[in-house]
Amino acid sequence: MKLNAYIAGVGMTRFGKFLERGLKSIGAEAVAAALVDAGIEKSDLQAAWVGNAAAGVVTGQECIRGEVVLRGMGIGKIPVVNVENACASSSTAFNQACAMVSAGYYDCVLALGVEKLYHEDKRKTFGAFSGAVDVEAFAEIMASLKKSAEASGAGAASKGAGEKRSMFMDIYAMAARAHMKAYGTTVEQFAGVSAKNSLHGSLNPRAQYREVLSVEEVLASPMVAEPLTRPMCSPIGDGAAAVVIVSEEKARQMGLKNNVRVLTSVLRSGWDKEIGETGVATLAASEAYEEAGIGPQDLSVIELHDASAPAEIMAYEDLGLCGKGEGGSLISDGSTRLGGRLPVNTSGGLLRKGHPVGATGIAQIVELTEQLQGRSGKRQVEGARIGLAHNGGGTIGTDAAALCITILGV
Amino acid sequence: MKLNAYIAGVGMTRFGKFLERGLKSIGAEAVAAALVDAGIEKSDLQAAWVGNAAAGVVTGQECIRGEVVLRGMGIGKIPVVNVENACASSSTAFNQACAMVSAGYYDCVLALGVEKLYHEDKRKTFGAFSGAVDVEAFAEIMASLKKSAEASGAGAASKGAGEKRSMFMDIYAMAARAHMKAYGTTVEQFAGVSAKNSLHGSLNPRAQYREVLSVEEVLASPMVAEPLTRPMCSPIGDGAAAVVIVSEEKARQMGLKNNVRVLTSVLRSGWDKEIGETGVATLAASEAYEEAGIGPQDLSVIELHDASAPAEIMAYEDLGLCGKGEGGSLISDGSTRLGGRLPVNTSGGLLRKGHPVGATGIAQIVELTEQLQGRSGKRQVEGARIGLAHNGGGTIGTDAAALCITILGV
Repeated sequence: MKLNAYIAGVGMTRFGKFLERGLKSIGAEAVAAALVDAGIEKSDLQAAWVGNAAAGVVTGQECIRGEVVLRGMGIGKIPVVNVENACASSSTAFNQACAMVSAGYYDCVLALGVEKLYHEDKRKTFGAFSGAVDVEAFAEIMASLKKSAEASGAGAASKGAGEKRSMFMDIYAMAARAHMKAYGTTVEQFAGVSAKNSLHGSLNPRAQYREVLSVEEVLASPMVAEPLTRPMCSPIGDGAAAVVIVSEEKARQMGLKNNVRVLTSVLRSGWDKEIGETGVATLAASEAYEEAGIGPQDLSVIELHDASAPAEIMAYEDLGLCGKGEGGSLISDGSTRLGGRLPVNTSGGLLRKGHPVGATGIAQIVELTEQLQGRSGKRQVEGARIGLAHNGGGTIGTDAAALCITILGV
Repeated sequence: MKLNAYIAGVGMTRFGKFLERGLKSIGAEAVAAALVDAGIEKSDLQAAWVGNAAAGVVTGQECIRGEVVLRGMGIGKIPVVNVENACASSSTAFNQACAMVSAGYYDCVLALGVEKLYHEDKRKTFGAFSGAVDVEAFAEIMASLKKSAEASGAGAASKGAGEKRSMFMDIYAMAARAHMKAYGTTVEQFAGVSAKNSLHGSLNPRAQYREVLSVEEVLASPMVAEPLTRPMCSPIGDGAAAVVIVSEEKARQMGLKNNVRVLTSVLRSGWDKEIGETGVATLAASEAYEEAGIGPQDLSVIELHDASAPAEIMAYEDLGLCGKGEGGSLISDGSTRLGGRLPVNTSGGLLRKGHPVGATGIAQIVELTEQLQGRSGKRQVEGARIGLAHNGGGTIGTDAAALCITILGV
């Protein structure tokens, strides 16, 4: 949908492992930071959309997650809408909040993404991931993964899927092998994604991992699911990210400088697509470019859903940054690293900044907003004018269950 | 929010115990019925909002619930937003869908509420309820219930709360005792709510319970939590309800007759209110009346959140149908039964139609729509012109966590 809303302030926690903190604690930290950044009081908020994916399974807070988090900081009475779309939960919350402001229902609202994935009982953490596919079709999905692993001679990689790690890494590994076979993409290119994002993450004080890794170090790391080594898989994490969204008139009243405008946010769901059929990311990206009146060549900076290293390369293609099968070359030629033609995942991405699933979508918005306002410090993209966020969630049939593309501009 | 959207079609399952059916099966039944009622194809739907409260805990479908249900009937590609607000989940979904249509983003959308509460493992069912309060404050809530039960001499009633039944019945019992003490409301009046709604439910083929109960039979039933006997508590249930919402222009193009218009839908969240402070239901109702330009005296029919019998009496007061403390008299004088001045819960309400929590809000819309269109058969309210739905969800502090008031008119 074509939008006209402005970002008045952003805030987020560092992403990481916070066993001793609850949803309320990390949520409040992000909201408080966004309010300070916007220069408003909590009483100025007229409504809130809150994205979370897994609290029901992980913390037992199955219902009213947003109300509980906001209660913790004395925010009530306003409409609170709890929104869920797996890893795209908070981009969905942001999408809805921006649409409501653009429509004129509100002048000043909050969008929050908050997630606790770490739990002393790891079964709870992994239970969250197995709930992001069609659970009635779970047996079918696992059988298909097993079959694929056997066919590729990587039978061991599928052992214990969904128990000791997210089953999504098996799905990504399968897609990675298919990409290698079809287009000659190499494991070095996958490792190059992780190395690039580790460099970016090292410059981001809020990243979960700040160590710089070389391609060789990525390749030498423990195997998770052939060909994915550990740094090619996004980590488990806790965290929150928040954004205050205002109408054009309110932005003017507030005397906002360096206004970041939300040009468009396109949400789509996946389907049981045929082999070779264009997927939901390409569909959503095309629509977003059209609505924003731009093309991929106009982008200054991108945050995309690198839940695994090959996912970043495939997203390059889905977003039209290169032709089908050419994604690996953008890593090989350095186009998408800081200083390159079009820096991608300057925050460190999901791989290094971390991936507390319900917080990820808005964390991307936080990064892009700061880039467009020229306040990203050592990882600043010079002269950034237009940013794109690509956030996918869950799996349905053979595609992402939900996909959200947001384009911001100054 | 003031709205201008139209209801093109409604559909729902019977509410009941469907151990052998999944979310996809019951969701598809309701959606298919709504599409037939609207006379449109599934490909006409441009977006969907799906309310569900407990699938993560009950069925393991923690994420992408709407996408999974709609996939089951071949609906994909469109934006799907999963919305949660405990028992007010689907009125929230309806609120969001109507707002988006009124704003002109879409011409034809779906709002669906779907819930599976029955599970062979009853701990899963009751786990859903304990997740609808601030779980970090759970110990505090239970201690307060225990203290209150001891003070009222009904210590036994609190034993096993949240294990063998919903803890909400303990909360309602406490509120019922306070209402009796403050205003002289009687247990016969509470029983009268259940008797009235059982009469209404007996006329509704989709009600979970269709047996007519007398006040004496309600009083003689097993005690759940003093003074609430079993028929004074809404049952566990499974079910789904769906509505197709269209813009004014689309309604005209479709040649819709007997148009039901959504005048307003007000969503608010609760807060830690002071003793004696006006609650979220009164706040939301006042706002809704103002936006619709009507008062309680203009209403023809009401569906309200009788999760327990005393909750119906208290809702009369919150909605301004009578003064504070006078709710019981509307039962004693028959005002709110079919044939009375202002029939309430003609569907049988949550007590008798049933309460699959995430489906309840839209089931209320289904009942009101059919009443306003004059197609409610034996339970038809003659000349119904304006209907109000009151749907609450969860508990926060001392109030409902979410409260949604919707007003429909023809």
